[in-house]
Parts: sequence; C-alpha cells; structure tokens
Amino acid sequence: YTRAEVAQHRTPSDRVWVTYGTEVFDVTDFVELHPGGPDKILLAAGGALEPFWALYAVHSQAHVLELLRDYKVGELSPEDTAPPAGDTKDPFSGDPPRHPALRVNSLKPFNAEPPPELLTQSFLTPNELFFTRNHLPVPAVEPGSYRLRVEGPGGRALSLSLAELRQRFPKHEVTATLQCAGNRRSEMSRVRPVKGLAWDIGAISTARWGGARLRDVLLAAGFGDETVGDGEWHVCFEGLDADASGTPYGASIPLKRAVSAEAEVLLAYEMNGQELPRDHGFPVRVLVPGVVGARSVKWLRSVVVSPSESPSHWQQNDYKGFCPSVDWDSVDFRSAPAIQELPVQSAITEPRPGAAVPAGELTVKGYAWSGGGREVVRVSGGRGWVGVKRRKGHPVSSSRRSHPLFPLRVAVPAGARLDIVCKAVDSSYNVQPDTVAPIWNLRGVLSNAWHRVPVAVTR
Amino acid sequence: YTRAEVAQHRTPSDRVWVTYGTEVFDVTDFVELHPGGPDKILLAAGGALEPFWALYAVHSQAHVLELLRDYKVGELSPEDTAPPAGDTKDPFSGDPPRHPALRVNSLKPFNAEPPPELLTQSFLTPNELFFTRNHLPVPAVEPGSYRLRVEGPGGRALSLSLAELRQRFPKHEVTATLQCAGNRRSEMSRVRPVKGLAWDIGAISTARWGGARLRDVLLAAGFGDETVGDGEWHVCFEGLDADASGTPYGASIPLKRAVSAEAEVLLAYEMNGQELPRDHGFPVRVLVPGVVGARSVKWLRSVVVSPSESPSHWQQNDYKGFCPSVDWDSVDFRSAPAIQELPVQSAITEPRPGAAVPAGELTVKGYAWSGGGREVVRVSGGRGWVGVKRRKGHPVSSSRRSHPLFPLRVAVPAGARLDIVCKAVDSSYNVQPDTVAPIWNLRGVLSNAWHRVPVAVTR
Repeated sequence: YTRAEVAQHRTPSDRVWVTYGTEVFDVTDFVELHPGGPDKILLAAGGALEPFWALYAVHSQAHVLELLRDYKVGELSPEDTAPPAGDTKDPFSGDPPRHPALRVNSLKPFNAEPPPELLTQSFLTPNELFFTRNHLPVPAVEPGSYRLRVEGPGGRALSLSLAELRQRFPKHEVTATLQCAGNRRSEMSRVRPVKGLAWDIGAISTARWGGARLRDVLLAAGFGDETVGDGEWHVCFEGLDADASGTPYGASIPLKRAVSAEAEVLLAYEMNGQELPRDHGFPVRVLVPGVVGARSVKWLRSVVVSPSESPSHWQQNDYKGFCPSVDWDSVDFRSAPAIQELPVQSAITEPRPGAAVPAGELTVKGYAWSGGGREVVRVSGGRGWVGVKRRKGHPVSSSRRSHPLFPLRVAVPAGARLDIVCKAVDSSYNVQPDTVAPIWNLRGVLSNAWHRVPVAVTR
Repeated sequence: YTRAEVAQHRTPSDRVWVTYGTEVFDVTDFVELHPGGPDKILLAAGGALEPFWALYAVHSQAHVLELLRDYKVGELSPEDTAPPAGDTKDPFSGDPPRHPALRVNSLKPFNAEPPPELLTQSFLTPNELFFTRNHLPVPAVEPGSYRLRVEGPGGRALSLSLAELRQRFPKHEVTATLQCAGNRRSEMSRVRPVKGLAWDIGAISTARWGGARLRDVLLAAGFGDETVGDGEWHVCFEGLDADASGTPYGASIPLKRAVSAEAEVLLAYEMNGQELPRDHGFPVRVLVPGVVGARSVKWLRSVVVSPSESPSHWQQNDYKGFCPSVDWDSVDFRSAPAIQELPVQSAITEPRPGAAVPAGELTVKGYAWSGGGREVVRVSGGRGWVGVKRRKGHPVSSSRRSHPLFPLRVAVPAGARLDIVCKAVDSSYNVQPDTVAPIWNLRGVLSNAWHRVPVAVTR
C-alpha cells in the first residue's frame, strides 16, 4: 500500500488503518478495546504509530506488538517507506518534521496545537506536542558557529558561543507555561470575525526549561538593578528567523522584569531535559514566565538593552488589546500597551464540545493558569450555570509558574443538552469575564471568558 | 435656634438651613445658584458650613460671607454653640470628631465613606474625607511615649520611638490608593444578603503617604532579601486598637513584599503632608500599596517576622474570597488564601443612581484602579450596554499606585431609562466581570463587576 492509501482509512466507517515500520494494520476492531480509549488510538488513524508510541512508553512491551500482528493487512510499497523530500525552493522546506497528532492551524509558517485531551494527559507537555507558534520559516542554525550578541548603551558588548552561554553562567531551571495571545481565538471569532489563526484551546503548554538566567547575562554585560532606575527601559530580542527582506522576528520586555531574580527569565537551551527542538528555538530561546508567548523570542540572535520598546511589528502593531468598538478603520496601535502579563485563564479539555456523555457523575478535565506568576487559587465548574446554587466549586492545587490540571466531578441529569462551564480565580482574585462579546477585539487576542462546552446527555 | 432645629432643614421642601459660627442661614433660594452645584451645597444642609469650607478654600473670600449674610434667619441658642461632650463610659467615647460629609455605615466602630461626588473632586482625597474603616475604638496614643517593636527569629529586636523612626530612616513618599475589601458590597447584597457593612462605592481613597520604608526598618533589624529564601515567610503587624479582652487588630503580608524595594511598603507617619489623623492610625500605620486595606494596619505597635501568617481573626477567618455556593454552614476559611492584591476595579461617581439627566452629551465621572501596582490601561463606559457597537472606549491616563479619575462623554437619547456602565482593563489585561452574581460571596468582598448606574433621561 502507499501512504496515501493508508491515509484514507481514518474512521471506523472507512476502516482504521495504521502503519508500524513498513507494515500496515487494520485496527478497526481494536478501537473500542484500546485501553487508553478509542479517541486516543484514533489520533494515529491513517498514519504511523511510532510518533505516538514514542510519547506513551506503555506501548514498548512485547505483548503490544503481538496483539498488533493479529491486525496486519499488508506492507507499505518500497518507494513509500520514507516521507517525500521537501521542495528546496520553498522557504519552509527546511522546516523540521512534526508530530502528526498536532492540529495544524497554519502549515507555512507552522502553527499547531496539541489535541485538548493530550494537553491534560500529563502535567508537562511532551516537546513533540508543545503548541508551536512560528511567524516565519524555521532557521537552520549550526550550533558550532552560533553566536549570541548582548549589548546596550553604557554596557560591555558580549558575543557568546553556545558553549560559553552554557559554561559561563549557571544553569537555572524553571517549570513554566507559555500561552499564545491568540489561545481560544476561535471562540472570539464566533462572536464576530477577527484576523488571526483559528486557535482552539490548545495554544498553551508547559515545560521544564533549562538555561542561563537573563539576569546573569545582563549583569555580565554591565546592566543591573541600578540600570532600571526610574525610567522604563527595555530589553529587545531578535530572532534568526527573518522574512524575505531579512527583517527578523523581534519583541521586548521591560528591563525591570529582565533583571528581576524573582521573574526567572531564561535564555533557555533545554526543554524537558532535552536540547531545544528546532520548532521551539534551537539552539537558544528567551523564556519569560507569566508573559505572553510572543515575547519569548526563539532562535535568539541578539539581546539589546534600550530606552525604547522593540521597534518590531510584533511589539508595535500586533499583540495589543482594544475595545470591541475599535475596528480596522479606527485602530491606533499606539494607543494600547503591548501585551506582557496575560489575564487569568482556564478551559475544559474533556469532554469535547458536542460530546455525548452518560447521565450521572461526569469527570471534567481542564487546565487553569494566570499571568505574572500569579497562582490559580480556585477553579469552579458546573452544568447549565443558570443559577448560583447549581454551581460546584473545587479548590485546585496551584503552581506558581505553570498551569495546574484539574479534574472536577459534576452531576449531569439524563436527557438534556447542557453546557459544562469552568472559570478560574487567581491570587489577585481576578476572575475570568462571564462572556466573550465584551472582550471581543479585532485581533482576537486575550480570549479568556468562561469556557463553555455543550454536551448531550445520553442516558 | 437649637442645632436640632437646624438639622430638620435639610431639603428644599423643608427649607435648607446651615450654620456659620453662631449664625443660622436659610439658603434654600441659593441652592440652585451655588457655583459648585446644588448637590454640593446640600451636603452641608442642616449643619455647619465650616467643615466644608475648610476643604474648599474657594469660600475663603469676603464676598462669599457677604452673600451669605443676605440669607441670615437667626442665631444658635447659647447652650448649643458647642457639640455635646461624649459619654466617658463608652469605649468609643475617645474617638475623634469626623467630617459631617462622610456617609456613616457604622458609628461604633466608625466606618464611613466620602460621598461619591467628592471622591472624584480631586485626585488626592482630603484627609477629612478619606474613607475610614475601623475595627475597634480609636486608641489614644501619647506620641512622646510611643514605641514600635520590630522582631523575629534570627533578627535584632528593635524598639523605636517616633523620633527614632523619623530620624534613623530616610523619609520615603508614595502616592497610593487604599481600598477596603468590602467596597461596593451593597451591590453584592442586592443579589443575596451578605454579612458586612453596606459600603457603597466610596470605600476607596488616595493619599500621598510619607514614612520610613518597611524594607529599611527590616534591614536594620537583620532581615533582608536573603531571609526571603524559598519558604514563604510573613511580616505580622499588630495595632494598638484592641477589643475588651485586649486582643489587638492584626494582619500580615508576605516577607517578599515587605522587603521589596519596588513594592514601597511604608511605616507611614504622614498623610497628604500632615501628620496621620487619629482615624487613620496616628502616630504610625502600615501602608501596603496595591493590597487590600485590611493589611495596612493602623496605630502600629509591632512588626514581627514569622514563618506563619498573622494568627489574627482578620487574617485567618475574614477577608477571604469564596465561591457563590459556599454558605455559612459549609465555609472553611482555611481553604481560601487571605486576600492580598485586589482585582481590577472601577465605578461611576456621577451621575448617581436614579438621577434625572438631560438628553444629549453627558459627562460621566468615576475612578479606576487595580491591585499589585498594575496600571489601568483603559476604561470603557457606555449607555444601555446592550450591543458592542453602542459602547464607547476612551484611554485614561494611568498611575501605577493610585486610582486615575476619568471623565467619559456619552451620548444619551431623550425619553429613556437606561444604565450608564463602566469597566476597566489593567496592565495584565485582566477585566472586571460582567455581572455580580457569579462573584457573590458570603462576606460580600471583592465586588468588582461592571458598575451600572440607572438614570432617567429628562428631555
């Protein structure tokens, strides 16, 4: 069989085919028997099992392969055992391979999110499933010749090799969540159309990051607490990713945050104990905990201390919030501050919208998080959400920098269509807004209203 | 006339009487002519003009007294020229005199707020009008014998006189807003009854504070950045105000905030350039910018560094937020964190609810503020607030620690009853929740939904 033929078998009605090595299997009859649930095995339907088994080590057992053998229907054609080579004229042809479970919102540049159920499968998001938000083609960086430039007025300019960055500064590790400003944009565009990629609820992920503290690097370059002073200085980052004119991606954060020991801003070269994957900034990226992902610049080439914010398009004319009444004719990007800390957020990953759920006690899974290092102190979930008394509140374990995952148990009555709803409260006692329309904005950013999941109760 | 007789003349239908010195005036016919507006002169109706004229120096002109003379109707009885002496057996009999414009929510202990229109009359709230939230009788402190105790494990205990506090540590000044956790509680109790004083929108005020930085005092006592460490240590405050059993008011803040240079926590002895008034903590109070007022302990007698939060009732079993589903039978105060930073807030001070306003362009006045030192980046106001397009957005000048005042101009159509609404966004892009019911809680704290003011349009 060709890979194209296998790819046509993605649902039980078309039969569910998968490959392992060069062998092809029809696992339709196993779908309902899958110990991890039918929805999980269907993520691999029409393609290769290896990327999923690599994530879920429970499959590395002899009896799993034996079981699979019963479902074999054939072999892949010899010319189809490797994926096709890329088109060398395409600026994106050098992009790395990606995990097939990712839900792709844009292929070029690559923007993709994990399926919601996998997002809450584990506290740390596996690197292969971490949401990816690229603005430009992924640069090919030769680690041996990589140099990071650090400079600014009154400082000592540095040019650091990867080895120097690793050896000269102590490695600092932090578990932190990154969220795209556009996470949950698709809910906002259902109110009125917006410009932007149609992210569902998966543009948020958590990893254990390792690298040099930006504070330590800035101190070595002659910038410290005393530089902060009364003025509002900034640290501007540029990436090695660039458009056809050579203009790189760029962003900045306030110097105050950059030199704060407490803020734990990193120049990261490790992600979940591995070197940074190419899609996440190899060999070095910025990691700004509690701040919109757009400031955690990937493929970092320069760090510049400056009296002004980054002049980049993405700092000046994007990633800002506006009133619902502002449209593309009236918008003045200078009138709003660049998004830095994000507001309190939560969403339900299971059940999924439109799901049929059995009556009785339902387990609702999801995530909650807040910006600026603020903890989540409570998540409430409920059904219908019509009256105050029908709501159920549950405390969640909180984690300063990263999203806690929550299970809520909710009673649902038989024979009804209803919304499962969740909302979070953070340590500043800020809450999510009730509805989407009043926070609607033309770019579809900062979408953090209560999350509502309509379900049908089956019995 | 007696003062009691004068007090019966508070409205135009009863005639509006005021006193100045020992003279009594009927100013009914001047009410509509008052350059500051009829509502302002009516604040003094039935009582003395002096406290109001002391605040608004524009009255200190010869022609104002001449004008007043035209309305004289008589003199106060000789036995009624001084207010009656207090009852010495009452624990509150030593409380100081207060400005008559304050709206009193509780007389003993004294809890009062300024009229909303006066709150937005000036950026700094005059000391006499600053909202007052006392939990106990006001202690009488002899400044010459006052001592402040500072101590904790591993530190050097200090005992500081008022003169030592002033001379040994540099004076630091900060303009900061204090807000009571119960501000706007009366809106919450309209959803369902709550326990607590019925604050309107005035339990928030701004002053320029002067004092020693708590950081400097803690450093002198042997506690600094290194004490913070990984654990969550606290700084506990006790006041000289105590109940019948001798238990003082107390509260605590995290040590991390207490020693942070950026957080600017003060041991304040000045308020708007004057020594602290007795109602606001004479001779020394804590001032924690961006944090609920309950932690800014007044009449400060001790500062204790501790591995635990304050054991005080007000830290452990009050000033915490809960779900709407939690009632007095099910509440577990240990399950919620003590309120520290407050969420984003705004309210309309003019027009007042039920006001009749002319059709056309209406000026709406109000305040906006957020906790944790976060700036307000936008306030939106509008009429009706039914559809997104009817809203009007206006940027406001922002101020890091203190509430900006805003004027919004809104077009109102003739012959309608409608709600004027406002809401704010802070620099973390957190927003106020749409409605009150979902944030309802049994203590009526953290009431920060959109502020709605119903008005009738007259012509």
